Amino acid sequence: MKLARIGGTENDGVCRLALTDEEIEARRLLITWADEIGLSVYTDDISNLFFCLEGTETDAPPVVTGSHIDSQPTGGKFDGAFGVVAGFEAIQAIQESGVVPTKPIEIVVWMNEEGSRFSPGMMGSEAFTGRRPMEQILEVKDVNGIRTVEALEKTLAMFPNIKRRSLGFPMTAFIEAHIEQGPILEELGVPVGVVTGIQGSRRFRVRVTGDEGHAGTLPMSDRKDALFSALEMIGAMRQAFDTDQVKFTTGLFQVSPNVPSVVPSNVLFSIDIRHPDGQTLKRLGNAISGLCEENRGPCAVEVMEIATSDSLEFPNEIRACISNSAQELGIENKPILSMAGHDARQLHYHCPTGMIFSPCEEGISHNEAENCEPSDLATVTRVLAVTLAKLAS
Amino acid sequence: MKLARIGGTENDGVCRLALTDEEIEARRLLITWADEIGLSVYTDDISNLFFCLEGTETDAPPVVTGSHIDSQPTGGKFDGAFGVVAGFEAIQAIQESGVVPTKPIEIVVWMNEEGSRFSPGMMGSEAFTGRRPMEQILEVKDVNGIRTVEALEKTLAMFPNIKRRSLGFPMTAFIEAHIEQGPILEELGVPVGVVTGIQGSRRFRVRVTGDEGHAGTLPMSDRKDALFSALEMIGAMRQAFDTDQVKFTTGLFQVSPNVPSVVPSNVLFSIDIRHPDGQTLKRLGNAISGLCEENRGPCAVEVMEIATSDSLEFPNEIRACISNSAQELGIENKPILSMAGHDARQLHYHCPTGMIFSPCEEGISHNEAENCEPSDLATVTRVLAVTLAKLAS
Repeated sequence: MKLARIGGTENDGVCRLALTDEEIEARRLLITWADEIGLSVYTDDISNLFFCLEGTETDAPPVVTGSHIDSQPTGGKFDGAFGVVAGFEAIQAIQESGVVPTKPIEIVVWMNEEGSRFSPGMMGSEAFTGRRPMEQILEVKDVNGIRTVEALEKTLAMFPNIKRRSLGFPMTAFIEAHIEQGPILEELGVPVGVVTGIQGSRRFRVRVTGDEGHAGTLPMSDRKDALFSALEMIGAMRQAFDTDQVKFTTGLFQVSPNVPSVVPSNVLFSIDIRHPDGQTLKRLGNAISGLCEENRGPCAVEVMEIATSDSLEFPNEIRACISNSAQELGIENKPILSMAGHDARQLHYHCPTGMIFSPCEEGISHNEAENCEPSDLATVTRVLAVTLAKLAS
Repeated sequence: MKLARIGGTENDGVCRLALTDEEIEARRLLITWADEIGLSVYTDDISNLFFCLEGTETDAPPVVTGSHIDSQPTGGKFDGAFGVVAGFEAIQAIQESGVVPTKPIEIVVWMNEEGSRFSPGMMGSEAFTGRRPMEQILEVKDVNGIRTVEALEKTLAMFPNIKRRSLGFPMTAFIEAHIEQGPILEELGVPVGVVTGIQGSRRFRVRVTGDEGHAGTLPMSDRKDALFSALEMIGAMRQAFDTDQVKFTTGLFQVSPNVPSVVPSNVLFSIDIRHPDGQTLKRLGNAISGLCEENRGPCAVEVMEIATSDSLEFPNEIRACISNSAQELGIENKPILSMAGHDARQLHYHCPTGMIFSPCEEGISHNEAENCEPSDLATVTRVLAVTLAKLAS
């Protein structure tokens, strides 16, 4: 909860965007915690943070847990942060048990998972695993035109004494604890979800170009109104995608010149489309370009796909390890598909990976009202500790 | 053209928002021009600027011409600025003719006509004529939260030596020269439009309130998506207002939190609706609240009317004076209704008022591509000079 106060909002939520002063302050707090319990601290070229508990085999690839501490602008206290805090608590529990693990156990804080300042997100895990070129990441700009590379250098400069590690070092396993961000575990009354995989998603940007005009003089029939054309496109997509299990979101919508008495000449909007079935997702995503083209009216349109994530399944041995750990503790658990994307999506292509979910009140997330039961979070943390200890032994 | 370079854009347009450094620089240039031809300079509490050619009766209410020098963010070189420059040229012509007018002739520069930085616009002419309370104007904020009063004090402080006059002093007449901003004069091939009146307009802000949610996890049926509800409202209004002569514009559309993976919780959008017939305008404007309510879906909606301007007719004697002046010069002229609002709308309630229009290439305005024939502008300026001289004699 001390972490949640950094970037805390009036409505009890969190605004802690990647590489901002707030996120830097949160990094400082985590480093203090690591120092207090004797963990070594590392970073890398993309400013991921690592907190390491040494094992008896110091050179063995570590077992890693963690998540992210950046948030949405009006985000909650648990999304991301829980996975990092749970890592600290799990390691403390292991330390207190007196058993020294064979392999090192580490907590990682991935840089910019949310992608609300620099979009798309998952920059830390994608750079680490090599799934997006570093050059591309560094040039992404925020709404104020600040490049990722500038914000990154500023952040790294704040911590000049932390040792730098190379990107992509080998890991024995990666286990991410996270809140479900959906209503299923709460409805089932089950405190622990063993995540089977992650629903795929496709993300687009659509740029609509019309022409400016005077709101009082330009006849309607002569207008090239980019706003009206964008509305037609989104309306057509809503209709076409109105089928079971689809999630279709336009979260970003920027109009220019965006003044009351000028017909809008430009609109840039985002499309985020998700479906648990990979084939359906492919088909729906492929329809977007055509639907925009058919509904562009007198304007021009450009559709760009900026990120695609296939649906994926985590390996059985990791799922079994988590489930067995819960069973040994006498804790009920169920398999669950993740509807949201996580850094674990990238790590899946780097090392054996899995996730553990905690229930989330009414499934509300990416919202200041996000909430979880402390007892559920403690339960997931216990399962995480046993899982990490098993994997590191 | 020297004026157009202040705030000039790459695409040959102008960005000179009210009370910005660019507008202040433009004011300086005008003051230089006034000094060069011996006009006295005044300002008032809302930072309107006045340039005065003395008459033989120094205390007589002046004949006033002018317009504004603020622009839209991607505006043209002529909207507003032409009326001010034409005032200077007309006064110079009168000076060169050797005739000293009986009444003073003045050029006015009204503060913030466009309303693109501080909205709604026409602040200078509304404060001068008392048609909007000064307290209300001073508290309007721009997108950065800067209040009008702060920007105003900054501007006035730049010109400490200019004498302050009281708001609302009597005028003999007000004549505004302006580009048509529509295609009619160009189509008719007539160089001078004698404006009969101004089309009425109603301006609204609509605030749609839903709830944030995670783009990957929140089922579509549980969403309160403020963007989708706003689109439904605008769609319904487009359909309802799809009748002859209506102008319906949503130029401002702000989404929050405006990030790709969060369902939007808030949208604020503008409606600008105009119609030459006062009764039709009233009926259409009155339908807006119901249409928004019917199409709000799961969201809440608040509709605020922020400005209403009735359709108005300029007095016959002023229209006749302009038309006669043109005829004396052998210049063809036609009556024309103004589709756009102008400061003359406010002055109409203060003193006998009229407007003279120049053709405007393809009717394009509020656009960097705005263009006019220099010979047309010169023709209008000659008519303006004769009109001012007549009214001041």
